[in-house]
Amino acid sequence: MKIGDFTIRIYVFVRSQEDSAMENIVTEKKAEESHRQDSADLLIFILLLTLTILTIWLFKHRRFRFLHETGLAMIYGLLVGVVLRYGIHVPRDVSNVTLSCHVNASPATLLVNVSGKFYEYTLKGEISANEVNDVQDNEMLRKVTFDPEVFFNILLPPIIFHAGYSLKRRHFFRNMGSILAYAFLGTVISCFIIGLLMYGCVMLMKQVGQLDGDFFFTDCLFFGAIVSATDPVTVLAIFNELQVDVDLYALLFGESVLNDAVAVVLSSSIVAYQPEGDNSHTFEVMAMLKSFGIFLGVFSGSFALGVATGVVTFTKLRDFQLLETALFFLMSWSTFLLAEACGFTGVVAVLFCGITQAHYTYNNLSPESQDRTKQLFELLNFLAENFIFSYMGLTLFTFQNHVFNPMFIVGAFLAVFLGRAANIYPLSFLLNLGRRNKIRSNFQHMMMFAGLRGAMTFALSIRDTATYARQMMFSTTLLVVFFTVWICGGGTTQMLSCQRIRVGVDSDQDNSVSVSLGSERRSTKQESAWLFRIWYNFDHNYLKPILTHSGPPLTATLPPCCGPLARFLTSPQAYENEGQLKDDDSDLILTDGDINLTYGDITVSTDGSGTHTSGGPAFAGATSDDLDRELTYGDHELVMRGTRLVLPMDDSEPPFTDPHHRLRM
Amino acid sequence: MKIGDFTIRIYVFVRSQEDSAMENIVTEKKAEESHRQDSADLLIFILLLTLTILTIWLFKHRRFRFLHETGLAMIYGLLVGVVLRYGIHVPRDVSNVTLSCHVNASPATLLVNVSGKFYEYTLKGEISANEVNDVQDNEMLRKVTFDPEVFFNILLPPIIFHAGYSLKRRHFFRNMGSILAYAFLGTVISCFIIGLLMYGCVMLMKQVGQLDGDFFFTDCLFFGAIVSATDPVTVLAIFNELQVDVDLYALLFGESVLNDAVAVVLSSSIVAYQPEGDNSHTFEVMAMLKSFGIFLGVFSGSFALGVATGVVTFTKLRDFQLLETALFFLMSWSTFLLAEACGFTGVVAVLFCGITQAHYTYNNLSPESQDRTKQLFELLNFLAENFIFSYMGLTLFTFQNHVFNPMFIVGAFLAVFLGRAANIYPLSFLLNLGRRNKIRSNFQHMMMFAGLRGAMTFALSIRDTATYARQMMFSTTLLVVFFTVWICGGGTTQMLSCQRIRVGVDSDQDNSVSVSLGSERRSTKQESAWLFRIWYNFDHNYLKPILTHSGPPLTATLPPCCGPLARFLTSPQAYENEGQLKDDDSDLILTDGDINLTYGDITVSTDGSGTHTSGGPAFAGATSDDLDRELTYGDHELVMRGTRLVLPMDDSEPPFTDPHHRLRM
Repeated sequence: MKIGDFTIRIYVFVRSQEDSAMENIVTEKKAEESHRQDSADLLIFILLLTLTILTIWLFKHRRFRFLHETGLAMIYGLLVGVVLRYGIHVPRDVSNVTLSCHVNASPATLLVNVSGKFYEYTLKGEISANEVNDVQDNEMLRKVTFDPEVFFNILLPPIIFHAGYSLKRRHFFRNMGSILAYAFLGTVISCFIIGLLMYGCVMLMKQVGQLDGDFFFTDCLFFGAIVSATDPVTVLAIFNELQVDVDLYALLFGESVLNDAVAVVLSSSIVAYQPEGDNSHTFEVMAMLKSFGIFLGVFSGSFALGVATGVVTFTKLRDFQLLETALFFLMSWSTFLLAEACGFTGVVAVLFCGITQAHYTYNNLSPESQDRTKQLFELLNFLAENFIFSYMGLTLFTFQNHVFNPMFIVGAFLAVFLGRAANIYPLSFLLNLGRRNKIRSNFQHMMMFAGLRGAMTFALSIRDTATYARQMMFSTTLLVVFFTVWICGGGTTQMLSCQRIRVGVDSDQDNSVSVSLGSERRSTKQESAWLFRIWYNFDHNYLKPILTHSGPPLTATLPPCCGPLARFLTSPQAYENEGQLKDDDSDLILTDGDINLTYGDITVSTDGSGTHTSGGPAFAGATSDDLDRELTYGDHELVMRGTRLVLPMDDSEPPFTDPHHRLRM
Repeated sequence: MKIGDFTIRIYVFVRSQEDSAMENIVTEKKAEESHRQDSADLLIFILLLTLTILTIWLFKHRRFRFLHETGLAMIYGLLVGVVLRYGIHVPRDVSNVTLSCHVNASPATLLVNVSGKFYEYTLKGEISANEVNDVQDNEMLRKVTFDPEVFFNILLPPIIFHAGYSLKRRHFFRNMGSILAYAFLGTVISCFIIGLLMYGCVMLMKQVGQLDGDFFFTDCLFFGAIVSATDPVTVLAIFNELQVDVDLYALLFGESVLNDAVAVVLSSSIVAYQPEGDNSHTFEVMAMLKSFGIFLGVFSGSFALGVATGVVTFTKLRDFQLLETALFFLMSWSTFLLAEACGFTGVVAVLFCGITQAHYTYNNLSPESQDRTKQLFELLNFLAENFIFSYMGLTLFTFQNHVFNPMFIVGAFLAVFLGRAANIYPLSFLLNLGRRNKIRSNFQHMMMFAGLRGAMTFALSIRDTATYARQMMFSTTLLVVFFTVWICGGGTTQMLSCQRIRVGVDSDQDNSVSVSLGSERRSTKQESAWLFRIWYNFDHNYLKPILTHSGPPLTATLPPCCGPLARFLTSPQAYENEGQLKDDDSDLILTDGDINLTYGDITVSTDGSGTHTSGGPAFAGATSDDLDRELTYGDHELVMRGTRLVLPMDDSEPPFTDPHHRLRM
């Protein structure tokens, strides 16, 4: 390694030379000045958030629904971005000195020896060549630009965790199959459709001569992956407020939560797609399989990690709420860090950690801590979300390397639309073949319409803006987010009334309402997800009693031969809880009716309808038909429970429209 | 400015040369590796905190009081520090290349041109010359070393805000005069005593030849300032648990909260002490006056800012608790940033913001938000505090530039002890001349003993470790913190019983108890702080009604001529509150008795003792003697109220030992 090979050129901004006695003071003053500037920059964001909060309050007070807080945060961000860009010119007293010396690498750490003193420099990032001369002018703008990793490591985790923690579990599990289909299959379909369309678009641009840099097929696929993460926070807020149909809510929310995870892992797998040899960026089966393997590995690793730490948080610190909350908070954060340290995806781990903690750990917390943790994550989620959206607005003007290409933008909008359509409609058709309760076409249109892009898409696209292709993607992504949040988000109420989707549905009363209405009857167990149901039974009978104080005591669910073990593992509280279980737990387990189903082998229904459970262990040796009957029975049982108040009318109920449903089998 | 003047030497750690096709991949992998490493490092701290929480829980459960959570966090930190230092050797595949080029400055930003690509480097800090060769070996240790500014900008603000927010206001205001004396006068005395003693010590070391670098008088004073910030968190926790005398608690807590602020501003004034001309580091009156001016300016500026934003947070968002809490949180943080951006001290501003918000804004919050904000800041305080203490333990082994000098350490311990003594005993003597309720000698010994050093001292000393003097200070400070937290903190219960200080005092019953006991009679208004009392009246009658919904309605307190204005400014809730005011507000205002005093001109006491208030506006034209009588009266009135349950015994009460107290004037 010869020194002569290296070339280094250093642009240094130095003040006019001072004598060494004053040098220290100057350095101190400079540091102080820079610290003040940093504080002022951060203050801008805090004030932006404050302004957003005040305006949201006004909107909520006046019941304006056309603009959600996130849309508002973007608008304020835009305005401040304009001011920073065009309004403020900070004169700087630095002179530009060009020096030459020799190195051929971009190490992470530089040690510079200035007249005997050593200074350490850390690598901040690459700067495009044509921009080097602007650096000093843009100091102000670059100051308000955060390290993109901030979004991934600080702002996204609380958002994702909160999403997992607040999944409406009953309705989520009821629609599990469809949600998984939309989230996994749908996102992959959308990614590849968008990728292919964009590749066509890029080819066309190359022909026309509108492309100024490289744009490979992997870049197109990457773009497909990042814009496939939907984030209908605006829509869901309105759904919540108007109490829109809970199943539609569950489908949309579940899909958006899970497809974030899929998109993250998908995009990192695409980045990892590196064909060997010289002919990079061409298709190669092995590399593709490797990418696929990485996808599966990272996803399942993150999933396992999240679930494992979620389960581990086995708090028994009931007496000290502060410790309990602190531990809960730290465990969820350490899940993220652990996953990242292992090379998995922290966001995915945190999501499943949140779901698991809501399912198990939540039951172990004291009631006060349950409130505390909920409120804490609600607050963190609120702040992080609004911060990201206002930063999005800001960055449209303050980001230095925007590449707006009209053809690419038009192509992207078209591709995003088609990709979403290719996700929703075919999958809904296929799912409807299996679902008892069809996803009607107005629901499908609503889901199509609610494909907003948000925080995750932004965070993924800003993470790497080094190359020309990535910069063009980033700029286009910003526009996609703006458009969907403002136009689609703002038009939600119009779309709801246009599609005649019921509003004002009380989720707890949902079943009885639908029964009484008759015409809108929907079976509670909507899919014959028998695999899931087996898991659920295992979970409810064995995992929950072991991991939490709720659920039936193990002594009741384990076979008699395991008596001593069961007594050892069951906590005293579980026995106390047994009586009130059905009330306490209703939000966390599938439905009350399922308790009867899973207790099937030991209890007999007390409902007055005269039906009884099939004897023996619930699933041992049961044929598929038996299972189906049992599930249908459990389902019916639930309807009974749900409609206990209208039970006398039960016999005079109109026949169900669903031919599969066997009443009083 | 000629290029020839400059000298730059760049030590670069480069991997063995790769061809440019693979370069990108390598860079990406390197970045990923570094990200993983960062996550793992952060994970260490999270796990440390988790471990601390679990152990604390065990200790609380078993009622161990000899070791507080902060002491425990330090021990765990120490253990991990040892492991990191001696246990882990990460082999690194970097080669050390020395290059030469020319520059004579240490700019904040370097642009490096490596074979056509530009990379931006930011200044991280100075590295001592003898350490340059160790840099690569110590990469691991340096990774777990945080930027010192993290402590000041992220970890300290929530701690300080929580302290201000949770000041026990009634007892705090009762002992206001003494607390201010200890905090302001006492800290300055302590700072100068320690500074002078250390200067003597340093002179001696120079004589003996034990000093390897410069150590000026300003350095000594700086050391005095940073170790004058007491932080008896351990002691206060035990006080709280054992319900030690509330006045002692108030004195200690109030002093420790305020002297943090004083020490911060004092230390920055000392740093700002820069005599002009060549003979730096000599005494100069003008520079000293300038420093004093800076002290006053920064302190009052921060104070005004904190109070102003505290008052501004005028939430009326009662319907939306989340928005309310978020706004509250953001306003307190923006106080910090605003103060820093203006060149004031954020920590001081946040402290007074906390006090003001607790006094005014808290009353405007909905009950749910009051809980939320309390819990949120409690959690943040808990996490930040334990993080700092465990980092302290860690840094004893991982910090690279420790300078342990036995003479200096012995001198420092002696100076810290004498400085504390020079603060407490003379001031207590002087204060006792004016106080009705003397600070007894066992209280003085306890305060002397409780002069623990903690988070603030550490944060101040780690902020700048560039010079030899500062490094020696930092190492010594660490030892002082360890010693005081472990030894003094651990011996609190022993000290309490040794000094025969009452425990198990219920703060609300305090007055009646002391009256019934007779021998331990303490007047509630302990000092004739009439200036403060005038302010208090103004606050209670005018500020509170305007700024909050609590307090008496303005229509009752303003003269009749201002009727329309009063009606305009009074919120409807204020009228509703009027009836229940005395119960609701008891924690936030001085005492119930004072309401009678301040209502003096419009109400007549309903107590059966037959006394009546002096007519006319409370203080208009009153002579000093009148005032004193009135205050004494109000004081007596309070005793009446406090002892309403024992009122029949009132006449047979033994005469008060305090000759100044006029019973039934």
